Amino acid sequence: MKAIKVGLLGLGTVGTGVVRIVEGHQEDLLNQCGSPIEIAKVSVKSLNKQRAVDVDVSKFTEDPWEVVRDAEIDVVIEVMGGVDHTKQYIEEALRSGKHVVTANKDLMALHGPELFEIARQHGCDIYYEASVAGGIPIIRTLLDGFSSDRLTKIMGIVNGTTNYILSKMSQEGASYNDVLEEAQQLGYAEADPTADVEGLDAARKMTILASLGFRSHFSLDNVQVKGISSVSKEDIAYAKKLGYELKLLGIAEREEDLISVSVQPTMVKQTHPIASVNGVFNAVYVYGEAVGETMFYGPGAGELPTATSIVADLVAVVKNIRLGVSGKQANYAYKDIKLKSDDQIVSQYFMLLEVADKAGVLSSISKVFGDYDVSLDAVLQQPNPALPEAEIIIITHDANKAAIDKVLDVFTTMDVVQKVKSVYRVEG
Amino acid sequence: MKAIKVGLLGLGTVGTGVVRIVEGHQEDLLNQCGSPIEIAKVSVKSLNKQRAVDVDVSKFTEDPWEVVRDAEIDVVIEVMGGVDHTKQYIEEALRSGKHVVTANKDLMALHGPELFEIARQHGCDIYYEASVAGGIPIIRTLLDGFSSDRLTKIMGIVNGTTNYILSKMSQEGASYNDVLEEAQQLGYAEADPTADVEGLDAARKMTILASLGFRSHFSLDNVQVKGISSVSKEDIAYAKKLGYELKLLGIAEREEDLISVSVQPTMVKQTHPIASVNGVFNAVYVYGEAVGETMFYGPGAGELPTATSIVADLVAVVKNIRLGVSGKQANYAYKDIKLKSDDQIVSQYFMLLEVADKAGVLSSISKVFGDYDVSLDAVLQQPNPALPEAEIIIITHDANKAAIDKVLDVFTTMDVVQKVKSVYRVEG
Repeated sequence: MKAIKVGLLGLGTVGTGVVRIVEGHQEDLLNQCGSPIEIAKVSVKSLNKQRAVDVDVSKFTEDPWEVVRDAEIDVVIEVMGGVDHTKQYIEEALRSGKHVVTANKDLMALHGPELFEIARQHGCDIYYEASVAGGIPIIRTLLDGFSSDRLTKIMGIVNGTTNYILSKMSQEGASYNDVLEEAQQLGYAEADPTADVEGLDAARKMTILASLGFRSHFSLDNVQVKGISSVSKEDIAYAKKLGYELKLLGIAEREEDLISVSVQPTMVKQTHPIASVNGVFNAVYVYGEAVGETMFYGPGAGELPTATSIVADLVAVVKNIRLGVSGKQANYAYKDIKLKSDDQIVSQYFMLLEVADKAGVLSSISKVFGDYDVSLDAVLQQPNPALPEAEIIIITHDANKAAIDKVLDVFTTMDVVQKVKSVYRVEG
Repeated sequence: MKAIKVGLLGLGTVGTGVVRIVEGHQEDLLNQCGSPIEIAKVSVKSLNKQRAVDVDVSKFTEDPWEVVRDAEIDVVIEVMGGVDHTKQYIEEALRSGKHVVTANKDLMALHGPELFEIARQHGCDIYYEASVAGGIPIIRTLLDGFSSDRLTKIMGIVNGTTNYILSKMSQEGASYNDVLEEAQQLGYAEADPTADVEGLDAARKMTILASLGFRSHFSLDNVQVKGISSVSKEDIAYAKKLGYELKLLGIAEREEDLISVSVQPTMVKQTHPIASVNGVFNAVYVYGEAVGETMFYGPGAGELPTATSIVADLVAVVKNIRLGVSGKQANYAYKDIKLKSDDQIVSQYFMLLEVADKAGVLSSISKVFGDYDVSLDAVLQQPNPALPEAEIIIITHDANKAAIDKVLDVFTTMDVVQKVKSVYRVEG
């Protein structure tokens, strides 16, 4: 039986995991694919580095083109990361009839549709389960498991770094900066944490999930993004007091053919299943018209969890090769959708205001909400012993984002509102 | 484009849901399968009953044989339930080249391997996602999502009725009988609840999950089953006090090639993700060597959730037909496994003992544990104001089941142990 030859682009943490699983599970893979699988070529940054896995040195090259142009290679697994160069390698692989498995969320978020089209033209598969929520098979769940349903909401904790930080802040009452520093020491956050803490990583993943869940292509421009760098200890303390956890949620939601996609720190009611997802774990909550509430929970990153998803994709690709159905994935993105405008994006909001501590303040603030048709679910006014000012906490009923923005605009003009300390979306 | 013709066996709640989804989602289904789908024939118990869906009366028959022998039908969806007759219909369908989608856990648990073999011989597919955990796509997750991993543990809350009862008992401090009665009134429990409350329904589902997860065939005889009918208010109160929830868990676990499968009320630490799965919801917790902890949560039953899974299977079957790869599902059950003996099944245990309220009792009880090498994690002795006796609560460290059974045997011979009120497995 002819072995399927795999070329690996990159041999960092995840690449090492892929080699470990492919080498260690030969019998299972053979039983499931019907073909032995051989790692035939590996491109690495430096030939001279010590490796944690035992790969014959003759298989190494420092030139990725050698992998994607090797006529013997059937499937290219891309775990080198990066966008521009990597895209060229993947395009070349597809153009020369190789199937591709990638863990590269940036590439797929930015260039997915283009790559799908090249794959289709050349009768090749491109699989990318590991690009979102590492160990959770959420992509095949959205594509196949819910193929018969119409989803209305996808909410994801899809960035482990920020979930670790917010969980720690909640559990220990610690400050953002202290926990970030600890996360950097533990390797849970990068030296430059911007892409994680400002929500960009989560936004890329949400474009992928929204595209699959709503059967249309979304780009990064379609996502409203806000990160967690301004979340304070105080915000989290108030959230807990009111029965919420603060989470960085990606939220993609649909009403008829109107969609909105956002990433933002969100107050999630403690009884909601996603509120108890802590630490570096990821979870994706999916609501479908027919199925109702579901949630998928697991590790979002890590050598072996991510490699598990990559090798599961490899098994799928090899099965397709053997069955002669490569490149026949149906085009999932067949829907015309429109993005919601701000006055169509509706949810509850939390606000923490610093106000002058005198009579009539609450009434003048309430009037502003009333002027824009925003009704209030809960109001809590209390003196802050540390400040001459008082604090008012407000949770609105469902309101549209445009109205909330207008309310906030008016607040900036009012003497009695000294500061809008925080504004968060609320999910029940 | 030729329509795919579907024959439906049964038009109860779930069958009605299937018709609703197929009729209501024509455009999505066409986009995903590449073929229109038509419900062409439906077998019902009585032609004269009022129907909640609009199906042309000419498609009805009271004779299931007319559906499975109709040469026009491509796919048979079985939602009539039952085992013996239903098996004959499904066999006939497969023998005449029809693909089968079924929600019938009893049939699949009892006769799965036989039906797979008939399907294979006739180049047909048989899909059964809806047979376990209705709306959760757990079967394709175990087959495809984790194809590259080696699982070590599958724990499931796979019976909504018992989870509803235990959740209510926990939340309201109510008794088993009161909650059961309420569940029967709400339609969450059958008039004869035996199959649910004695764990048989869960056991059937666990044979299916264990078979998929451990790539071997398990039968009902392989499952140790204990139901919830003897769970008391007191047990649940003690569980909560100690930081646990009592759940009816199906547990399939593997060490090397040794497996055990059981269904039993289990004390689950409140911090474990499965402990907070309440009401009629289902969840399946999966631990893999590579992926680590994952959990899949959603509705376990209901018209539309179950129908969602059935129609997702239908989409997969139709894609296979169009790609010409029907009946090519790899045989997943290729492993030789052995069942663990009782001295190989290891876990922590909880015991609630009623003992004579006098000096030296604890020491003589502790000695028995020591004699069988069972060490103790926690011991709590307290007088029960309602009784002349005292109560002792014990949580053991990991111990094998054979040793625990021997300890319990000895207790029956001891005067000071007046009653072993409860014994539960403990999961952290």
